[in-house]
Amino acid sequence: MHVVEMRSVMKRQIINSPDEVVSQALEGLELCHGNMIRYDSIGGIVCRRTPARDKVGVVSGGGAGHEPLHAGFVGHGMLDVAVPGAVFASPTALQVRAGTVAADSGRGVVQIVKNYTGDVLNFRIAGELATDDAIDTRIVLVDDDLATDAGDAGGPGRRGTAAVVAVEKIVGACAEAGASLDDVAALGRRVAATSRTMSLALEAGTHPGQRRPAFQLTEDEVELGVGIHGERGIGRAPFDEADALTEMLVNPVVAELNLARGQSVIAIVNGLGGAYPLELSIAARAVHRLLDARGIRVARMLAGSYVTSLDMHGFSVTLTTADDELISLWDAPVRTPALTW
Amino acid sequence: MHVVEMRSVMKRQIINSPDEVVSQALEGLELCHGNMIRYDSIGGIVCRRTPARDKVGVVSGGGAGHEPLHAGFVGHGMLDVAVPGAVFASPTALQVRAGTVAADSGRGVVQIVKNYTGDVLNFRIAGELATDDAIDTRIVLVDDDLATDAGDAGGPGRRGTAAVVAVEKIVGACAEAGASLDDVAALGRRVAATSRTMSLALEAGTHPGQRRPAFQLTEDEVELGVGIHGERGIGRAPFDEADALTEMLVNPVVAELNLARGQSVIAIVNGLGGAYPLELSIAARAVHRLLDARGIRVARMLAGSYVTSLDMHGFSVTLTTADDELISLWDAPVRTPALTW
Repeated sequence: MHVVEMRSVMKRQIINSPDEVVSQALEGLELCHGNMIRYDSIGGIVCRRTPARDKVGVVSGGGAGHEPLHAGFVGHGMLDVAVPGAVFASPTALQVRAGTVAADSGRGVVQIVKNYTGDVLNFRIAGELATDDAIDTRIVLVDDDLATDAGDAGGPGRRGTAAVVAVEKIVGACAEAGASLDDVAALGRRVAATSRTMSLALEAGTHPGQRRPAFQLTEDEVELGVGIHGERGIGRAPFDEADALTEMLVNPVVAELNLARGQSVIAIVNGLGGAYPLELSIAARAVHRLLDARGIRVARMLAGSYVTSLDMHGFSVTLTTADDELISLWDAPVRTPALTW
Repeated sequence: MHVVEMRSVMKRQIINSPDEVVSQALEGLELCHGNMIRYDSIGGIVCRRTPARDKVGVVSGGGAGHEPLHAGFVGHGMLDVAVPGAVFASPTALQVRAGTVAADSGRGVVQIVKNYTGDVLNFRIAGELATDDAIDTRIVLVDDDLATDAGDAGGPGRRGTAAVVAVEKIVGACAEAGASLDDVAALGRRVAATSRTMSLALEAGTHPGQRRPAFQLTEDEVELGVGIHGERGIGRAPFDEADALTEMLVNPVVAELNLARGQSVIAIVNGLGGAYPLELSIAARAVHRLLDARGIRVARMLAGSYVTSLDMHGFSVTLTTADDELISLWDAPVRTPALTW
C-alpha cells in the first residue's frame, strides 16, 4: 500500500487573495440573488432583501468554506440572517449580535448553532448581548455527527454537520407559520435530536491559498467520519463501490436512531464539495435501496452539495426521523439562493 | 516549468460500475425528485411526472457527464423530456424519437440540440421518424462555444455548451405561455444566436472508471477554451487570480457579441464540475465588475454548476444579449430538479 501520488499535488483555486475569499464570494452571491438577499459588509451579515415582519427571527452562522451553507439559505421559509465567519472560523460575537438584531421583528430570535466550541461561545455571548437590545433568544444546537459521539464520556459532544439543513428548513417553515419563540425552538431541538449524520471522504479539501489537501489517504482506503473542517475521521475503511460505501454510512445512522420497519425519514445525501452530481445521485439511489430493504420509508430525499468542506471529495448521509408534522414543514415553500421549492 | 505531479494521480469515483453510472444516477434523480420527473428506463428518457397538455413540447438531450444537464431541467417551465446518452456519447435516434413522442401534446415539438455531430445526426433522424407519428418538429441548434469558432473556414461549427441553459429556460417559458411551434423555435434560435461562451480549466475531468484526467497541465498554466468532453482548448494561458482569469473569458465574448454601453445581458457563470461555490461566486463578482466597467448591464446572473464535465475544475462565462422579452421569459416560473424559481 503506497501513498497516492496525488498527495504531492499542487491544488489551485479560482480566487483572488485568500483574505478576500469570503467577502468577495458574498458580494458575488448578492449580485446573483439580489432579489432575495442583501450582504451587509460592515456588519458582516447576510439578510433577506425584504425583512420579514411579525414572526420569530431565525439566524444561523459559522465559519465559511461550507457553501452554500449558511448564506445560501437566507430567504422566505428558511433563515432571516446568516452570519459568516472566515474560512473554518467562527463569526465574532459582535457579528452574531448584529445578525440577531437584524433578524428580530419583535417576537424573539432562534439561533441555530452547529456544535463547535467557538460558534457556541460566540452565539451565547451574542444572546446575552441581545438582552441589552431587549431581544429574547433561544439557541438550537445541531450535533448530528455520529463520528464524534463519545457516549457518556463527556467532551465537546458531537459536531454539527449536514443536519443543519433539515433544522434550518423545518425551523424556518415553523417560524414563517407564526409559531411562538418557545415552540419554534422546541421544534428545532426535536429535529436536531432525531437527526444523525455519517460521512466519508476519498480526498481531503484544500484551504484557499494552500497547495496541499488537509490530509493524505492511500489509494485503497477512504476516510470514515471526516469532519467538515479538514478534520480526519475515526478511521480508514477500504475503498469500494458506491453501494458499499453508502452502506458504511447508512448502517450506523439507522442503528443510532433505532429506526424500525414502518418508520419514515427525511434523507439528505450531501456532497462535501468535490463530489459531482452523478456520484451523489448514485449514492441517493443506494440510500433509498438500503432503507427500503429494511422497511424504512424515505419520505423525502435531497441529494446535492449543501454543507461542503471546500473541495473535499466525499459525501455524508443524514437521516431525520420524520412524522407528518415534520414532513409538512419540510414541504412548505422555501425561496433562497440554494434551496427553492 | 514541470508537469504537476497531480497528473500521476489516481482519481477515484463514487460509482458502482462505469456501465451503470447513467442509469443508476437517473434512478437516484427520480427517487429525489419523483414529484417532478419520471425516468423511463426502457425508453431511456426522463419525462415530467405530469405531462403538460396543449403546448409545444420541448425536448433536449445529449451525452451524460454534464449533470444536472439535461434531466435536471425537466419540469414546468423548461423541458418536457430529456434524452440522456451514455457518458459523453449521443443518445440514439430511437431514444430521441421516444422522447419526441413523449413530449408531444399535439402542437409539435422543439428539439434543443447542442452542436455535436452525433447529437445533430440523431436528432435529425428522430425528427424524420417523428413525421411517421404525425409530429411536427423543429431543431434549435445551440452553438455558443467561442473557442471553436472557425469563422468562414467551415467545419462542424462552434460546439454547444452552457448557453443551452439559457435556451432551455427561455424556450421552455415561451412554450409554457402557449406560443406556436414556429414562434418557439424562432425564439430559441434568437437566444442561441445572441449567446456566446468561453471556458477555462485548471484541471481536466476524469472519465468514470478511469484513473487519470483527460489531459495534463503544468502548475503555472490554465487551459483556455476547453470543451465539455475532455477536449483540450485553443491554448494555454498563465494561471492567475480569479479576476484576471475571468477577464480572459469575458473579453472575447463581449467582443464577439459586439456588446456596447447601455446593452443588457443575462450572464451564466458555469462551474465545470470541480469548481466549488466560493470560487463561482468570486467569478460572478468579477463578471459583474468587468461588464459594469464597460457600461453593460447585467440584467440577470446565475452562478453554479449547470453544464459540467464530470469533475473538471474550471468554469465558463456565457453572455446572452437580452431585451425585455427575454428577461421576462427568463424570470417566468420554473420548477425542475436543478433550477426552480
